[in-house]
Amino acid sequence: MSRISIVGIAYERELVPPRNQRRIEDADVVVGDKSFLGQIEDLVRRDAVAVDPTEDDEDFRGSRVIFALNSAREGNDVVLVSSGDPGIWGMAPYVLNRMCADGAEPDGAGRVHVDILPAPAAFQITAGKAGAPLQDGFVACSLCDDLTPEDTVDRRLDAAAGSGMATVVYKPRYNAEIMPKKYPRERFPHLHPAREQSDRRLADLFDVFLSARPATTPVVLARNLGEPDESVSVRTLTDLRSSVADIPFFAVLIICGEHTVEVGPYMSVDR
Amino acid sequence: MSRISIVGIAYERELVPPRNQRRIEDADVVVGDKSFLGQIEDLVRRDAVAVDPTEDDEDFRGSRVIFALNSAREGNDVVLVSSGDPGIWGMAPYVLNRMCADGAEPDGAGRVHVDILPAPAAFQITAGKAGAPLQDGFVACSLCDDLTPEDTVDRRLDAAAGSGMATVVYKPRYNAEIMPKKYPRERFPHLHPAREQSDRRLADLFDVFLSARPATTPVVLARNLGEPDESVSVRTLTDLRSSVADIPFFAVLIICGEHTVEVGPYMSVDR
Repeated sequence: MSRISIVGIAYERELVPPRNQRRIEDADVVVGDKSFLGQIEDLVRRDAVAVDPTEDDEDFRGSRVIFALNSAREGNDVVLVSSGDPGIWGMAPYVLNRMCADGAEPDGAGRVHVDILPAPAAFQITAGKAGAPLQDGFVACSLCDDLTPEDTVDRRLDAAAGSGMATVVYKPRYNAEIMPKKYPRERFPHLHPAREQSDRRLADLFDVFLSARPATTPVVLARNLGEPDESVSVRTLTDLRSSVADIPFFAVLIICGEHTVEVGPYMSVDR
Repeated sequence: MSRISIVGIAYERELVPPRNQRRIEDADVVVGDKSFLGQIEDLVRRDAVAVDPTEDDEDFRGSRVIFALNSAREGNDVVLVSSGDPGIWGMAPYVLNRMCADGAEPDGAGRVHVDILPAPAAFQITAGKAGAPLQDGFVACSLCDDLTPEDTVDRRLDAAAGSGMATVVYKPRYNAEIMPKKYPRERFPHLHPAREQSDRRLADLFDVFLSARPATTPVVLARNLGEPDESVSVRTLTDLRSSVADIPFFAVLIICGEHTVEVGPYMSVDR
């Protein structure tokens, strides 16, 4: 069967919907990041292939997508594993866009069928641990996004701050902080020094929200979700503005909305 | 164990994370809407109680929450079932707010412990069936929300339209359309005639987005998710503006963002 399923695997097995697990069990070929493959290796059939086809490729996402699509075109049932939701800062659009570039429309006669299977996303896990800060509508943005121009990100943050809604912030730091070889100073001068540039970007984020919301607005900070040192804490806009260095690379922020109420350690909304 | 878990059960068993299923299996008492209880009755222990404590209560959510909290305070391990994500237009805040009103802070010594367990939400299922329209950030709003003033909803829609981001719209029609007894004309004159008022609200929604985005902007329309007549189609802003009656009560809309690209039948984003 010529099929490619882009399958969300969240942070731990207990969060992965049965449909997603079964799709991995059924696959002839499973493609993905080495650490993701490690998370699900017990689900892969003994006669199936599990592979991360990247080495030091600059375009590691592209290498995985091309390998997965070629496998599917050879008649295989292929799974490409992705984090929480493959359609929210996940792998799904890379597959779709590659098919488009190849002139191979998905799902047509004799063509590769595509399925996108979500699992709970990091922002949902974060919100659940902190109560229900997203109940009444929200905005989800990525802060230090290589693929989106900074002025586009700024426009989104302005809209989010002005909306009064809770705002999820992914990717609080530039990739250059942990992948200096991939983002050398010569080619990416605006990303260096990387830590200082991330700190500046975060300070700007909090300034935008401080100009629109009270200084005491709670901010949920989840660090290292799924890791042994995972933590979720509640801070405030001013507090984080003056200590941006406390926000690590692997973090999700939820800036609470105007209608937030605090219930003991939990965030809720006025209902 | 004095615990209340607000557990998302999505639309079908295949989407419900194992953690959520296990929590239902472990419960002494399972509370929720009758149709939700029907979806998970095979998971409930034989010696456990599964109950919808509402009759014709006006405040059916409140009745379920009070019953569930009282059961937990009596020392039971209680599950309150909710739709997709209990913290995104779900039951979680009703529990937290009730505890606050009772002066019973969650998680304190001798108090009821609270857990909120997300499952994939309707907007994620919708997006997955349509490709990856939410990849690059998004706004999630509720249109005909009894609990949020209309001018607050308007402000959010203006911000969403101006942000350029994909926008999820829940609750496209007023409850008065299907619950006329609960929303009689005498007490809720602004909601009647209900169908016409919903149509007007939807027309306003599309007008706001048409003033900010091209008329051909794709809109994903999911109807009756999880039902036998479920369908997901892609329309445009102008098309839906002139046929708002096509949008049923149980629908989720995704108005695509400025960076959307169409790949065969799927929505993706420029990456």
